[in-house]
Amino acid sequence: MIPAPTQDPLALAAAQEARAAYRAGRVVPTAGVAPGLTQANMVSLPRDWAWDFLLYAQRNPKPCPVLDVIEAGGHTTALAEGADLRTDIPLYRVWRDGRLAEEVSDARALWAGQPDLVTFLIGCSFTFEAPLQQAGIEVRHIAQGCNVPMYRTRRACRPAGRLHGELVVSMRPIPAERVADAVAISGRFPSVHGAPVHVGDPAALGIADLDKPDFGDPVQIRPGELPVFWACGVTPQAAVMASGVPFAITHAPGHMFITDVPDAAWHV
Amino acid sequence: MIPAPTQDPLALAAAQEARAAYRAGRVVPTAGVAPGLTQANMVSLPRDWAWDFLLYAQRNPKPCPVLDVIEAGGHTTALAEGADLRTDIPLYRVWRDGRLAEEVSDARALWAGQPDLVTFLIGCSFTFEAPLQQAGIEVRHIAQGCNVPMYRTRRACRPAGRLHGELVVSMRPIPAERVADAVAISGRFPSVHGAPVHVGDPAALGIADLDKPDFGDPVQIRPGELPVFWACGVTPQAAVMASGVPFAITHAPGHMFITDVPDAAWHV
Repeated sequence: MIPAPTQDPLALAAAQEARAAYRAGRVVPTAGVAPGLTQANMVSLPRDWAWDFLLYAQRNPKPCPVLDVIEAGGHTTALAEGADLRTDIPLYRVWRDGRLAEEVSDARALWAGQPDLVTFLIGCSFTFEAPLQQAGIEVRHIAQGCNVPMYRTRRACRPAGRLHGELVVSMRPIPAERVADAVAISGRFPSVHGAPVHVGDPAALGIADLDKPDFGDPVQIRPGELPVFWACGVTPQAAVMASGVPFAITHAPGHMFITDVPDAAWHV
Repeated sequence: MIPAPTQDPLALAAAQEARAAYRAGRVVPTAGVAPGLTQANMVSLPRDWAWDFLLYAQRNPKPCPVLDVIEAGGHTTALAEGADLRTDIPLYRVWRDGRLAEEVSDARALWAGQPDLVTFLIGCSFTFEAPLQQAGIEVRHIAQGCNVPMYRTRRACRPAGRLHGELVVSMRPIPAERVADAVAISGRFPSVHGAPVHVGDPAALGIADLDKPDFGDPVQIRPGELPVFWACGVTPQAAVMASGVPFAITHAPGHMFITDVPDAAWHV
């Protein structure tokens, strides 16, 4: 039941080399690294919060698709042999009482100081962006060389225990005649956010100005394009903030964990 | 993030009437009841086992697709307004130390005696059988008017904490020229077991004799048909047995919980 690693030796080598470089201290965004392999969001929480978090993810599977859970104190994953989750992400964020406390490139000291951390790896929309591009749909933020724009919405996630928070969405402008294709293609990847949650009409989601994303960078919307909104893996970080979780470690936005599992493993 | 109930008043009435009848004491299998609405497997465990179970389900999503989790002591679900999970299933099984202890049609006394039960509703293959039939693929056990044949395999599920056990599969004979269609149709329902886990060759799964299922009834396999195996919602019961869980309540096989949610809610 563990997704098989890629059989492409070049892709595997690219993933291993990238993780080794991050472990050695390199801090760069991971977009475009080891193409074809799944990148993941990470959230680590004290064991006391793990049940609430897994339940929150189960109740909100579109923004929080769980790819792996590492039990208390662990820092290895079935999704990447030999990887160390404490060091192999380029940049980590440390949260205390729901507030961003610091960013670090090596989380070993944090893991040592909080030995019961349960770690969640969560799907990332990078997985369906390559198939969009392969179908001839431009992914604007990639074309513009910036981060995807992300927005808080006024749509609440279904709470779980002490965890609550709003849905965060990412936005990609899609030509009106390709919206159905973008829905169909991303919909084939339900375990990495799947189909959009909303097409057009940002005001209905509580988004006042598309040019001012809450996370990431604004992108151009051209005439004839609709803003299309997908559930976003930053949603768990929003829950950490909104719920005042006493301690958490996450990846920094855009600085993902690179697995050995091919994107195609999540295709239905 | 809660699947919307059906908008079909006749279907909703059928579900409500069925649950009321079971609550009043009627004991019958639920196959064919309230067609078009999702039926679910149920597992209730003491809170101490809930984390292990939810993790087991996350690690084995094909046999254990979680549709709802009801927190400790609760007996209502977002999937069916007004339903009571202690009474609205026709027949329950009670497990003690991994062994079947008794069957009851009213579980209120059990809930009262174990007030911290966490309850899981798990997807059922009934959801993709109607689309198979609509595509002109005969579902043999329905045609024969019996229960689907289910088999223990020698394929281990990925363990979680104290929970371990083998994968249980259901089998439907499919004509060779329709196997691809059956894969594609069921694959559109990843949250209710999805695509088959195995096509043909029962010996490779450790199944010695298709005529002797471990659960359910044998069905005829005609010339030109292949046995096709889907992950089965009895897998959690197998884990309860294999792991010696001290106390659990489940539905009795074929006696499912009928929700108000349309099967189409799980379609991708």
